Amino acid sequence: NSYFKIAVLPGDGIGPEVVSESIKVLDAVAEVFKCRFQYSYGLMGAEAIFTTGNPLPEETLKICKDSDAVLFGAIGDPVFDNNPEAKVRPEQGLLKLRKELGLYANIRPLKTYPSLIDKSPLKREIIEGTDIQIFRELVSGIYFGEKFTDPDGKYAYDVCKYSTEEIIPIAHMAFKEAEKRKKKLTLIDKANVLDTSRLWRKTCQKIASQYPDVQLDYIFVDNAAMQLVLNPKQFDVILTENMFGDIISDEASVIGGSIGLLPSASIGEENALFEPIHGSYPQAKGKGIANPVASILSTAMMLDYLDLPEAADKLRRAVEHAIENRYVTVDLNAEQHYSTSEVGSFIADYI
Amino acid sequence: NSYFKIAVLPGDGIGPEVVSESIKVLDAVAEVFKCRFQYSYGLMGAEAIFTTGNPLPEETLKICKDSDAVLFGAIGDPVFDNNPEAKVRPEQGLLKLRKELGLYANIRPLKTYPSLIDKSPLKREIIEGTDIQIFRELVSGIYFGEKFTDPDGKYAYDVCKYSTEEIIPIAHMAFKEAEKRKKKLTLIDKANVLDTSRLWRKTCQKIASQYPDVQLDYIFVDNAAMQLVLNPKQFDVILTENMFGDIISDEASVIGGSIGLLPSASIGEENALFEPIHGSYPQAKGKGIANPVASILSTAMMLDYLDLPEAADKLRRAVEHAIENRYVTVDLNAEQHYSTSEVGSFIADYI
Ligand SMILES: CC(C)[C@H](C(=O)O)[C@@H](O)C(=O)O
Ligand SMILES: CC(C)[C@H](C(=O)O)[C@@H](O)C(=O)O
Repeated sequence: NSYFKIAVLPGDGIGPEVVSESIKVLDAVAEVFKCRFQYSYGLMGAEAIFTTGNPLPEETLKICKDSDAVLFGAIGDPVFDNNPEAKVRPEQGLLKLRKELGLYANIRPLKTYPSLIDKSPLKREIIEGTDIQIFRELVSGIYFGEKFTDPDGKYAYDVCKYSTEEIIPIAHMAFKEAEKRKKKLTLIDKANVLDTSRLWRKTCQKIASQYPDVQLDYIFVDNAAMQLVLNPKQFDVILTENMFGDIISDEASVIGGSIGLLPSASIGEENALFEPIHGSYPQAKGKGIANPVASILSTAMMLDYLDLPEAADKLRRAVEHAIENRYVTVDLNAEQHYSTSEVGSFIADYI
Repeated sequence: NSYFKIAVLPGDGIGPEVVSESIKVLDAVAEVFKCRFQYSYGLMGAEAIFTTGNPLPEETLKICKDSDAVLFGAIGDPVFDNNPEAKVRPEQGLLKLRKELGLYANIRPLKTYPSLIDKSPLKREIIEGTDIQIFRELVSGIYFGEKFTDPDGKYAYDVCKYSTEEIIPIAHMAFKEAEKRKKKLTLIDKANVLDTSRLWRKTCQKIASQYPDVQLDYIFVDNAAMQLVLNPKQFDVILTENMFGDIISDEASVIGGSIGLLPSASIGEENALFEPIHGSYPQAKGKGIANPVASILSTAMMLDYLDLPEAADKLRRAVEHAIENRYVTVDLNAEQHYSTSEVGSFIADYI
């Protein structure tokens, strides 16, 4: 196959700026690797609320369902964050999209770049050589369980629910990845307190027998939050539920000192979405200073998913080339830096 | 008042070793400050399960309810951790004790010691001067909500529920502390996803009008997990719900490089419990290498609670004296170090 339908959702904040660099790079890939990407743009998030009143318009959902893959920018706007009364919020669009597309596995690779280690808040000896792959369940748990606020505002609840059917697919995915890597899988949970966590443990324990080469470890989420800072190198593949994954993967994303570089993939049976993990970063919007690399590396994950591994590799090499040559945005080098679009062009040219 | 009934629960792992140093120090305090502490010992945790089958025997609960304050060591044993089928677990004892004593506020002060900053996994410039006080709600939320595992093991759920009545007292406590400090309170939640988090925001927003000097900020828990590593100095007083507090306060505890020094207080209307936050550390059990300082500083928090502020200050100065003179356990100085009991005696002697 050499023709792909890509849904493009630039979203909020710096989303549009970084996504347009991904498109630039994809165009270069198309030329070199003789394939075609057809882009369909959709509104989502705060932008979509402002223009349509809906954070995920039907039209956008349709474009995504019809696509081979979704390229997404970022979501979120301060206008909504500080208003607990807001009935419609940008995040609802993203949560609904994940659910509708069945994107049950959020995958975040976390690597350190030798030339950037000194940007980390952690000491070099702690962080050097860290290479983690996080699998976060994305369409269940407390995010999607029943929610209720009593009309008098006296109490509220959120239900965290999991079925074995929701755990099994992502567990297999994580075990398979562990087999390809150092054969070490760590399940993060709170099994000393939560029934759902014990269900995760039992389910993973059962599945483990199908992967005799992989060593399955367990760690409580509070301890995991400590160990990630104390000794991140002890982790290889991490598997966890939705809320713990949200917290732990964000914590993990900053230890390398380069959140502007980190991509993610959200995978389902029939759809997939690729987005940088840095979020909408509203303060930087429109200034041309956003780092496009996380979005571009998310595009590389998309190319792998579309079964274009050579194109994906080429793209990753292009990014490494830019970083090694210090052709980077201001977040990575305050002294000499280039704009979002200059970095995107440099990477596209290399391809 | 100069006569106090102290319930002493050494618990599991290194608990007994560190608690006995606290007693040594308390005895010195009693002598110097002309007061009397009467100790009643109780079993709790894995130790209690092994001898009575119950992680919190009735007898222990009674001793605690009758006391002016509870000194607690640590809980947890690897025998139970890796067995999701275990019906009785040590942690149940601690959770039940918190609930029965109504210990709704877990307070963790987090300071850096200049002479120990280089032990931190974070760089000196990131961590230097960090001084945070965390207030974690301790007797509600997903820890104590309804739990269910279906008999066929196909699904499970845990309910996170909060009422405004549960939020208000700890919120006032945190606001009051903020007034005494830098007048900055940060609520950590996930209000973009959870109804309970929005209840927390609304409730705190309302209370804020009674503390016009205090600036109330909000931060999402995933972002908080990042910011604690990127720039811990931005925080002063933190307020959060039970599960987020568990994760965030443990993460925060390692950034200073001295988890062996960190105390905690769990406060209710009529009871209070004091414990080091390092946990049972079973690998170190019986070796005489455990750092008693966290337990001793928890004792200082107890002295404050018992309205003996001079004794508490003296004790804190004694600890600082030991640290400045490098009279410390192996975790703080690998080259020249002293045993648990030597450090305890050094501190007691200074008093
Ligand atoms: C925007 C928000 C709802 C989302 C989440 O919590 O899942 C984000 O933090 C993420 O991790 O993708
Ligand atoms: C032992 C465990 C149940 C407990 C908790 O999660 O509250 C501990 O981690 C703590 O933070 O005191």
